[in-house]
Amino acid sequence: QRLETSRTPSRHFPRIYMDYNATTPLEPEVIQAISEALQDAWGNPSSNYIAGAKAKATINQSRENVARMVGGKAEDIIFTSGGTEANNMVLHTAVEHFRRSSRAAGQREGHRNGSGGLPHIITSNVEHDSVKLVAEHLQKEGKADVTYVPVSKMTARVEVEDVIAALRPNTCLVSIMLANNETGVIMPIPEISQRIKCLNKQQERLRVLLHTDAAQALGKIRVDACELGVDYLTVVGHKFYGPRVGALFVNGPGTRTPLYPMLFGGGQERNFRPGTENTAMIAGLGKVCFLLRMRVTGIHFSSAVFNNKIRFNSHYPGSDILPNTCNVSILGPSLQGWRVLSNCRKLLASVGAACHSDSGNRPSHILLSCGVPSEVAAGALRLSVGRATTKADVDAVVEDLRETVRQLEEMD
Amino acid sequence: QRLETSRTPSRHFPRIYMDYNATTPLEPEVIQAISEALQDAWGNPSSNYIAGAKAKATINQSRENVARMVGGKAEDIIFTSGGTEANNMVLHTAVEHFRRSSRAAGQREGHRNGSGGLPHIITSNVEHDSVKLVAEHLQKEGKADVTYVPVSKMTARVEVEDVIAALRPNTCLVSIMLANNETGVIMPIPEISQRIKCLNKQQERLRVLLHTDAAQALGKIRVDACELGVDYLTVVGHKFYGPRVGALFVNGPGTRTPLYPMLFGGGQERNFRPGTENTAMIAGLGKVCFLLRMRVTGIHFSSAVFNNKIRFNSHYPGSDILPNTCNVSILGPSLQGWRVLSNCRKLLASVGAACHSDSGNRPSHILLSCGVPSEVAAGALRLSVGRATTKADVDAVVEDLRETVRQLEEMD
Repeated sequence: QRLETSRTPSRHFPRIYMDYNATTPLEPEVIQAISEALQDAWGNPSSNYIAGAKAKATINQSRENVARMVGGKAEDIIFTSGGTEANNMVLHTAVEHFRRSSRAAGQREGHRNGSGGLPHIITSNVEHDSVKLVAEHLQKEGKADVTYVPVSKMTARVEVEDVIAALRPNTCLVSIMLANNETGVIMPIPEISQRIKCLNKQQERLRVLLHTDAAQALGKIRVDACELGVDYLTVVGHKFYGPRVGALFVNGPGTRTPLYPMLFGGGQERNFRPGTENTAMIAGLGKVCFLLRMRVTGIHFSSAVFNNKIRFNSHYPGSDILPNTCNVSILGPSLQGWRVLSNCRKLLASVGAACHSDSGNRPSHILLSCGVPSEVAAGALRLSVGRATTKADVDAVVEDLRETVRQLEEMD
Repeated sequence: QRLETSRTPSRHFPRIYMDYNATTPLEPEVIQAISEALQDAWGNPSSNYIAGAKAKATINQSRENVARMVGGKAEDIIFTSGGTEANNMVLHTAVEHFRRSSRAAGQREGHRNGSGGLPHIITSNVEHDSVKLVAEHLQKEGKADVTYVPVSKMTARVEVEDVIAALRPNTCLVSIMLANNETGVIMPIPEISQRIKCLNKQQERLRVLLHTDAAQALGKIRVDACELGVDYLTVVGHKFYGPRVGALFVNGPGTRTPLYPMLFGGGQERNFRPGTENTAMIAGLGKVCFLLRMRVTGIHFSSAVFNNKIRFNSHYPGSDILPNTCNVSILGPSLQGWRVLSNCRKLLASVGAACHSDSGNRPSHILLSCGVPSEVAAGALRLSVGRATTKADVDAVVEDLRETVRQLEEMD
């Protein structure tokens, strides 16, 4: 069953949407849940009477559903405006926690301004901008040191040993995405977590907090915060058929795990994230978490169709990837990704993250970081499929690509 | 035409909602606009193909509508997750702007760390928590000095002279709400603006920026950022029949008026507020701005019904108030506001701001600040009506109150 909107009849051809990693159409039941909440749960959740109670109940139910989806408790879920805010909050918290801890330690030792030094954050060189640019900002402002651990060019993964080797006495946070948005490569979070936990136990040091941005993983692979062993996990509704709202899982916010607000106001979300709750969007997020049973479509096709002049940019020995993601370059001097896509008659896809769509035709820095040669990266197409994608769609897209490539090569 | 939900048949009586200042039911056309956007404009607005373009067009149309409503240009509107975020952004910006300006001035004069001193913010003592608590936080962290100009106990307004008298050489921001949420009293923003503009011209000093939180005014009185003469104006959808989303008007963001982001990420909203846009909620906000023609219901009733044992807490000589707001205390030892409300059979209202609903039964600090005696403030009921309220509703509520008061007085 396909949503009408994924086949828009532009240019007289039915289009096939294969950019589910950019965003997903909403499940019909999610739209219904949102519309119902807009109608029936419009009261202010802080109001004491029935309209407020209904809104509060809706939010609490969603909190349960989101918690269950990520393997946490309801009290571990803080609703945010989206993934960007959730990621920003984690880095903000780590720096603030370091500042307070070192001030307290300094006071114990009789220094006035804490034990000195900047907080140190470890992240990877293939993170989403909502982690990367926060880290760069903190660095530029002199508020934190940051190490960008490069992914291995053999595996496209952040390797555990590289993360451990980057640790310093002042390291307060490791933030590594669960799966990359362009390659689909899954990062070894449980292994990183295990190592960090051992170190946290061994040393009389500041605890290293662990965050994973699970935006691209949720709804595609099993995600359980407890199994992953993370302190923070970012949830983004619109990446798995839900609305534009997010949540941050925090393992015991304010108790077992520090959390400091970025916003101040009316006390909602236990003061961690004030502002009158977006009840309807939260209802939609809860609904999709309740519905989702990981019915994930894979994407596979033979390189023989393209006379083997093709490179799969997300195949790395030993690395697992998201089943829905296929980053592929068709090799040839005139086959730049943007050029292929703009000549396809059916395929709707992207050359990389949507938020880089205005960065011109430069090859993806993510792919370059993974060891993809520049001329190959320039031809990259990120195909990401979803629940509505059929085998016939994949076949049609492969045929569409084959025909487009033939025409472009003839034109040259 | 009344929404079903504003009359919930709890306790076998039809309830009458008079808490429109806490939140409003959404206009049916707004719900429709949101549902349509969820269906048809679900694409990532940053994507280059048709689904993205449709989302982008929806957002741009909304931006036009919001701008027109507040008398600005489309490029002056930054969408935010709500009023709380918009207000936080303004105070954050003012402090950041001061820091950069004084660093630049210090460099010109050869000092290394700027010209010294803390930025100074002027606000009132009756602001919403999303201004008040940000100011308190900045003060506590040693990041700003704050003056809370008390409202006059005669007029319940912030008086222009008091604001001007509070100005210091380091003052970087004046943030005063346009209308108070509990009393409905309208603040003299145009007069404050005029005085600040003259001072800004006269002196070789840091420009004093002016912000007004128009959350309670929009949809109830005419609001035009240009006539008000403000640099920043906060828009909150759910206070005027729109969704839980907000916007910040900035008079030329990043050009005529500084604006510094609190969040970093994918570059949306010209980097001022990154994060994949909440297209559907933005569509709803645009719709309500387009629809609204200020059909505002007033609320009036005679004190004679209560044998004149009544005090109108929002009537002040010379002060204008929002037509929809009536803050009233029925006088009597057993007539605490919470007690009256919980015994009313029809009226749904509050004793003050919804986000203070868990602050127990203490009288509102807003009313105390306005000179209302403590024992009167303890009896306060904030009645705020809306587009669906009828004359018959007001009569029914007055009768309900009269009967409740009679019973409570008999019980004692």
